[in-house]
Amino acid sequence: MKPINVGLLGIGTVGGGTFTVLKRNAEEITRRAGRPICITVVADKNLELARKVTGGDARLTDDAFAVVSDPEIDIVVELIGGCGVARELVLQAIENGKHVVTANKALLAMHGNEIFVAAQKKGVMVAFEAAVAGGIPIIKALREGLTANRIEWLAGIINGTTNFILSEMRDKGLSFADALQDAQALGYAEADPTFDVEGVDAAHKATIMSAIAFGIPMQFDKAYVEGISKLDAVDIRYAEQLGYRIKLLGIARRREQGVELRVHPTLIPERRLIANVEGAMNAVLVQGDAVGATLYYGKGAGAEPTGSAVIADLVDVTRLHTSDPEHRVPHLAFQPNQVRDVPVLSIDEVITSYYLRMRVEDKPGVLADITRILADSSISIEALIQKEAAAGESDTDIIMLTHRTVERNANAAIAKIEVLESVQGKVTKLRVESLS
Amino acid sequence: MKPINVGLLGIGTVGGGTFTVLKRNAEEITRRAGRPICITVVADKNLELARKVTGGDARLTDDAFAVVSDPEIDIVVELIGGCGVARELVLQAIENGKHVVTANKALLAMHGNEIFVAAQKKGVMVAFEAAVAGGIPIIKALREGLTANRIEWLAGIINGTTNFILSEMRDKGLSFADALQDAQALGYAEADPTFDVEGVDAAHKATIMSAIAFGIPMQFDKAYVEGISKLDAVDIRYAEQLGYRIKLLGIARRREQGVELRVHPTLIPERRLIANVEGAMNAVLVQGDAVGATLYYGKGAGAEPTGSAVIADLVDVTRLHTSDPEHRVPHLAFQPNQVRDVPVLSIDEVITSYYLRMRVEDKPGVLADITRILADSSISIEALIQKEAAAGESDTDIIMLTHRTVERNANAAIAKIEVLESVQGKVTKLRVESLS
Repeated sequence: MKPINVGLLGIGTVGGGTFTVLKRNAEEITRRAGRPICITVVADKNLELARKVTGGDARLTDDAFAVVSDPEIDIVVELIGGCGVARELVLQAIENGKHVVTANKALLAMHGNEIFVAAQKKGVMVAFEAAVAGGIPIIKALREGLTANRIEWLAGIINGTTNFILSEMRDKGLSFADALQDAQALGYAEADPTFDVEGVDAAHKATIMSAIAFGIPMQFDKAYVEGISKLDAVDIRYAEQLGYRIKLLGIARRREQGVELRVHPTLIPERRLIANVEGAMNAVLVQGDAVGATLYYGKGAGAEPTGSAVIADLVDVTRLHTSDPEHRVPHLAFQPNQVRDVPVLSIDEVITSYYLRMRVEDKPGVLADITRILADSSISIEALIQKEAAAGESDTDIIMLTHRTVERNANAAIAKIEVLESVQGKVTKLRVESLS
Repeated sequence: MKPINVGLLGIGTVGGGTFTVLKRNAEEITRRAGRPICITVVADKNLELARKVTGGDARLTDDAFAVVSDPEIDIVVELIGGCGVARELVLQAIENGKHVVTANKALLAMHGNEIFVAAQKKGVMVAFEAAVAGGIPIIKALREGLTANRIEWLAGIINGTTNFILSEMRDKGLSFADALQDAQALGYAEADPTFDVEGVDAAHKATIMSAIAFGIPMQFDKAYVEGISKLDAVDIRYAEQLGYRIKLLGIARRREQGVELRVHPTLIPERRLIANVEGAMNAVLVQGDAVGATLYYGKGAGAEPTGSAVIADLVDVTRLHTSDPEHRVPHLAFQPNQVRDVPVLSIDEVITSYYLRMRVEDKPGVLADITRILADSSISIEALIQKEAAAGESDTDIIMLTHRTVERNANAAIAKIEVLESVQGKVTKLRVESLS
């Protein structure tokens, strides 16, 4: 059968992994797809790198725009990243009637709505399994595996860099700065780690998952994003004493009034499977009304794991590229005319439990003042640790876990606590999810 | 758009769950599928039950054969179970050009080859997500999510009854018989639990997964099947001392000479995520050459979780039922002419590590005799516990973990150990998998 011709844009880490795996497993992949999938042309600014990786098995060019208008090409794989030239290339490829496979989460989270409308108009597919959680087929699970369900919420460890750093902080008692250095030395964090450690990358992925889980548009600009750079090692230890682990979670939850969409360090009970996902691994927990909780675990980054997801999309598109669009899985899981404009709630409206740590004078009555404020705000306490002051010190830590309340209410109570004379400085607040 | 008409055969637990979820989430499912999916007719011997569950929302009949020849019906959902009438109904439905969705693992493991040939000839789909691991979309992950990979092995906790019993034995120190009684009282085990506890159900599921993972036919009759009914609680405790949990695993592994396909109680390192899957939950770990290890976790049984998988198949079939067969995902993941007749290796040929427990006289030289026999068979010892004899007893236990060796070799060494005068009775042998 006639091969399907792929134009690959960008032969960096993921591009290289995709090329290598497609070549190594060509026979097995053809046995599955029913026809050969060939990377016919590779575009990269670095032609020398491209030559090295492809070993002469593909045409090379440094002009990606020539690829997206090449009549020979059936599918364009965009692995350039970012929202500049990548956006233009993807839109031009669609305009030229090409199917697109991309791993570009930033592009989809920020320009997905525009891209899917364009694809819909042209009757082409835009596949993006590789954009979320690397090699884990989570997009397929959400979009096709769980179609029976009203998805209630999902929560994912979807950034390997931060999970590696948090694992190091807990295992070795390191500060954030030291753990970040380790991560950089081992290649788990970039020289400028901002996108990862500040939660932006996780928010892109959570945004994409929220859209296909709930049938809503991409609303990245409404997501609440808080990273781990301000996380204090002491809170990891206190959390452990309370039976919790701290993970950077991307959370999307359906509520009556809208959708919660947020990324932040989160305490989760240590007995949950997802609490035990360590190092650079990823995992996504999905709660459906029929299926209950399901969990998907694997490598969330890296050349071959991400290449695995790119190729799975290539096989899907190969199977469906000549079929009527109505036979295809809709981009956002729901039919295009069935996507609903549900608002993302502001972080003030989020309902969750809280971990609070405060530095107080170690004297009678302090705890009574604090718990009175919480009681007046109808915030119940689930657990509390009051440390004895260390020898020679007059201050000590109080740590508490609250029951669920709306964030605005928690913040108001915290503001009142912070003005108590016996309370030193700011209250540290972390969110807690039982994930049950 | 014109609804798709479904004929449901069997309105027991899974049939009821399917009906309930499809009705409850009708709006959301239609938003995904692009057209309504209606259970038009329900066939069950128990018309009263059918009436109660459907509440008048479907035609009822006690004649399932009328449903599979009803020209109005597009898809037949077979939830009767077993290999008798269910096989006839499925084959007749295919013969009549209907697509089939089934949760019947025994039928597929034993008659799948015949059924898929028939379906291929008629150009209809047979979907079976619900046949393995209930609500976990593991068939979809293996067949579509991991198409880039050469699957190296998979190992699954794919029987909730036995996992519940093993969890109870470990948590509460119960014997198998007592834990089985608990499971029966709680509805996790049937009155006749043979199929579950003897590993037959898990072997059906492992057979199906092996076929789609490796592109081979169903070869259930070649599977090695060993259940948990002879498992001694003492081995669970010793395994724990060595840092292992015992789980009933269904394992399929690709080897040079063929495929290992086996179900048996297995020691796995307690730090593995899958070792911490407790109660009636299921999980499948898949090792692909590109993606590495991925894990899929969720409820493996029950009305709504299994119904969730049935409906996911209904949505898939609805999307694809008017498309050319070449656009569809092949039944066994690989194109029909690309399925290869790879032999299943006999259990003698399996390569794994072993846990050995033996009762010996507590006197000098015994251990030397035993380790000499193992050394002569080139079996290395990875860990060893030798208990001191209890007060007043002259016998004691030796427990050891070996390195990997071929099972025939292990058995030969064990036979030699058993004839030693200082060794009492039989050696208990359990298999160990590092799953790394």
